[in-house]
Amino acid sequence: MNTSTALHTDRYELTMIDAAMARGTAEEHCLFEVFARRLPGARRYGVVAGTGRLLELIRDFRFGDAELEWLRTHDVVGQDTLDWLANYRFRGNIWGYREGEVYFPNSPILTVESSFAEGVILETLVLSVLNYDSAVANAATRMVTAAIGRPLAEMGSRRANEEAAVAAARAAYIAGFGATSNLEAGRRWGIPTMGTAAHAFTLLHASEEEAFRAQIEKLGTNTTLLVDTYDVRAGVETAIRVAGTELGAIRLDSGDLPTLVTEVREQLDALGATGTKITVTNDLDEHAIAGLANSPVDSYGVGTSVVTGSGSPAASMVYKLVARRGADGAWVPLAKNSEGKASIGGKKTPMRRLSASGRANQERIYLGETTPAQDVTERALNVPLVVNGEIEELYLGAAGTALAREHRVAAVSELPAAAFRLARGDAAVPTVFIGN
Amino acid sequence: MNTSTALHTDRYELTMIDAAMARGTAEEHCLFEVFARRLPGARRYGVVAGTGRLLELIRDFRFGDAELEWLRTHDVVGQDTLDWLANYRFRGNIWGYREGEVYFPNSPILTVESSFAEGVILETLVLSVLNYDSAVANAATRMVTAAIGRPLAEMGSRRANEEAAVAAARAAYIAGFGATSNLEAGRRWGIPTMGTAAHAFTLLHASEEEAFRAQIEKLGTNTTLLVDTYDVRAGVETAIRVAGTELGAIRLDSGDLPTLVTEVREQLDALGATGTKITVTNDLDEHAIAGLANSPVDSYGVGTSVVTGSGSPAASMVYKLVARRGADGAWVPLAKNSEGKASIGGKKTPMRRLSASGRANQERIYLGETTPAQDVTERALNVPLVVNGEIEELYLGAAGTALAREHRVAAVSELPAAAFRLARGDAAVPTVFIGN
Repeated sequence: MNTSTALHTDRYELTMIDAAMARGTAEEHCLFEVFARRLPGARRYGVVAGTGRLLELIRDFRFGDAELEWLRTHDVVGQDTLDWLANYRFRGNIWGYREGEVYFPNSPILTVESSFAEGVILETLVLSVLNYDSAVANAATRMVTAAIGRPLAEMGSRRANEEAAVAAARAAYIAGFGATSNLEAGRRWGIPTMGTAAHAFTLLHASEEEAFRAQIEKLGTNTTLLVDTYDVRAGVETAIRVAGTELGAIRLDSGDLPTLVTEVREQLDALGATGTKITVTNDLDEHAIAGLANSPVDSYGVGTSVVTGSGSPAASMVYKLVARRGADGAWVPLAKNSEGKASIGGKKTPMRRLSASGRANQERIYLGETTPAQDVTERALNVPLVVNGEIEELYLGAAGTALAREHRVAAVSELPAAAFRLARGDAAVPTVFIGN
Repeated sequence: MNTSTALHTDRYELTMIDAAMARGTAEEHCLFEVFARRLPGARRYGVVAGTGRLLELIRDFRFGDAELEWLRTHDVVGQDTLDWLANYRFRGNIWGYREGEVYFPNSPILTVESSFAEGVILETLVLSVLNYDSAVANAATRMVTAAIGRPLAEMGSRRANEEAAVAAARAAYIAGFGATSNLEAGRRWGIPTMGTAAHAFTLLHASEEEAFRAQIEKLGTNTTLLVDTYDVRAGVETAIRVAGTELGAIRLDSGDLPTLVTEVREQLDALGATGTKITVTNDLDEHAIAGLANSPVDSYGVGTSVVTGSGSPAASMVYKLVARRGADGAWVPLAKNSEGKASIGGKKTPMRRLSASGRANQERIYLGETTPAQDVTERALNVPLVVNGEIEELYLGAAGTALAREHRVAAVSELPAAAFRLARGDAAVPTVFIGN
């Protein structure tokens, strides 16, 4: 498999460059902007995820001999464009919301400043990463709220494309999950991994008791035993008989959880296993988690719903050309007028206005080139991510992932209470454009 | 980036192997089966996709030094298991439905025969691939039906993880789409690629007319011009004025399509551009496509809905241990009894029963080791995919992808008319288990 990310690109990005090069417009100085017109699922806020991962992919966005040969053979672009692609690396500027930042409709999450050709070619990759990772983070942050401080583990790899699964584990971690089952996510992004045994392990052995003995012999009594392969009550009894009252946890993966969890807690306590925890993993989403708030659950494992964005598998972000540098050096705002898809052109400076008590109450998007003064009531949202082609190292790798996870906590702590309602509704903080 | 697929695995697969090795059960001869308990979205049939891609990933499922070192450092498994992993390659048998085959609830899509350890370790990867690719194919096949023979192009890369996008392009192609915008899918799987220009290209230029001239100069008059950046009627007029009446196509990406398409067709005809085609690309799904059946649309571009499975982003397939070889050499059926998740153990032979006119009317799953006689009324569904670790080359690469695309046409042609209803409902063909 090739490791260049350069062909993770829609063909029309290259044909546009081809035509613009012939016309002499490919080198126009441009601004592209990523934003979402709405929050899918009528959620109250979104969480930016994918930025650090994207920066690494932009670093690897180079056309090697294999890519150029394929483009030549398939007659995608002409020789001038092939020569230009051979020397391509992104040399412009990118700034944007920090990874882990909260966003609202029309928040300018990422801005790319470069020649037309240099910027347009990144459209597909930028959107693939931000749309998927933010969709996962948007779902995950709601689950974290619903879990009222109890730990969550992401275990949905099997319900997502194998590479998407790694990105999902990372996005869920940034949004507050504590661990993942995905080993590659552990290796690539430094995320804690977890997991003990599945039903197959119990079925493999002559009896549930034998399976539990095998697991405890190898993994110790602090492990988690899956007790619902046959009969939960008998499974719990066997688990404590085999492991003793110091058993770490039992896992429930079926049944009506609010009822079952309460019964199992009583059974464990009656057996003297008062310290044995209960983890649940049965098709949970934010609503099921919220429905267990008053049940004696100790932790949650979430699969399908988090890796598929809990009903909103793409964050509906778009990448739009919003300005072109005019002959006088000033930005000329550009905006299409398509029905239902009109956009606001020009350079923008986003600020989050905070109340005296530090609560976010407005997303203020200043239009024009003047940067507004930052004061105690407005927090600037943009940070430099790439400066003259140099990627800000701070946001890369495991360290960047950890930083994004911290930043989400800070950003979410500014939100008004209405942001945490799970019901569909309007964004918790209104976005306003402020002309200059 | 590492190219081994071995860590695309849930941690518990490895801890189960670790415990089973210590207990002496890791080498038990086992059968694992992939099936879906239901068709998500209450669809009438499903299309298997991902198999050829999966076989290549299984070939690359090897633990190299980097993987072993990471597992050792993070104390995931003990030394005996690390030694076993170092020598791992799949040496068992895999058989299953052909890629492109139709399936129903409980169809045993894939069966893995191997030692417990050798088979259980593939669970996560197998499900990641089949669940995502089949989810896309399940959505795409309905869109193909709704398009009543008009060509469809997949252009949803920006709304899916960057690697998922490549898999989605492949799955949509297998399900009958004719092309993709994704260049990497073109390179990796031999899928035709397409695309010309976006709104950004029009915005970049001083006028729509100048943008159209630039595009036509480079791409010729047989190109597709996007006419809705400003005003559609003016855009169409400009397009024909610049390109002449031989213009290949115009693209509409906004507005109320049934009305707009009819108006634009009339305008094109009035301008003499009777051969200029109309392609539409505005947030289409199978229902929107069906709603355009009586409109003069020539082709469709589909994005978000196809790459996200049109509301069902994972096919809900599971990978279950269904049998273990007993001391006498016979398969012992295994099945858990968890509430709402009970399964049917044992070896199975799936056949599709056909009426005298060749119409599928029953999915017959024979239980037990006797292979039923195949006759004119029953079509055997299993083919060998891996034999003693040797992968069937026929199904790999671009050739395997093309074969799967052909097979879907044949399999779908057997379906009863009820299968093509877009409304929610029961599977079009009932699945029955037949004991021995």
